[in-house]
Amino acid sequence: MDKITLDDKFSLFTEHWRPKVVAALNGQEVKVVKVQGVFPWHRHTDIEEMFLVWRGRFRVEYRDRVIDMGPGEMCVVPRGVEHRTAADEEAEILVFEPSDVVNTGDAPVSEYTAPNNAGI
Amino acid sequence: MDKITLDDKFSLFTEHWRPKVVAALNGQEVKVVKVQGVFPWHRHTDIEEMFLVWRGRFRVEYRDRVIDMGPGEMCVVPRGVEHRTAADEEAEILVFEPSDVVNTGDAPVSEYTAPNNAGI
Repeated sequence: MDKITLDDKFSLFTEHWRPKVVAALNGQEVKVVKVQGVFPWHRHTDIEEMFLVWRGRFRVEYRDRVIDMGPGEMCVVPRGVEHRTAADEEAEILVFEPSDVVNTGDAPVSEYTAPNNAGI
Repeated sequence: MDKITLDDKFSLFTEHWRPKVVAALNGQEVKVVKVQGVFPWHRHTDIEEMFLVWRGRFRVEYRDRVIDMGPGEMCVVPRGVEHRTAADEEAEILVFEPSDVVNTGDAPVSEYTAPNNAGI
């Protein structure tokens, strides 16, 4: 029931592409993640995921289009649609998606594949 | 798949306590709402709801404590717990909760009870 201060949460880690759960509700999780570089192409067959940019610039790239976002901009990635995420410089992102989503989806496990349900 | 710009969404309406759906995913909705004043006491028996403050100051009040938040602060209201929300001056809030939640929960229908699934 306590409040969660996003800037405090982002100050607690420096690694990229490692989402941290800050809240859970209704089978969903809210995560904070720092990103820089380009994430592998993948898709999530059964779920949608939402990204809200907190700081910096961030792209959701599809095979045929790119969604370029800044702070206060968000998008939903439809289920089953191949995508990758990218940021030229470090950005801070809020993710909203069901619990137990593997961040690399159907892509092979790699250095980008993050532990699930990691809190902070 | 298009991006959603929160400031644009907030610029499209002026009324208070009338959440507008800006995204839907996994049976959940993301809503924007402007608030000012004090909302009726109520509870949601079966669901949690999350509030993220976008602009201004906002309180989630329980019978025994008050969570006072500013921009970039959020909280989850546990299911079944009586609460009310309040803001001394107008504030802009992001809400995450399942689709079809009645905003006044188990409280009597009143002027505060908002239409469901209203988009913008």
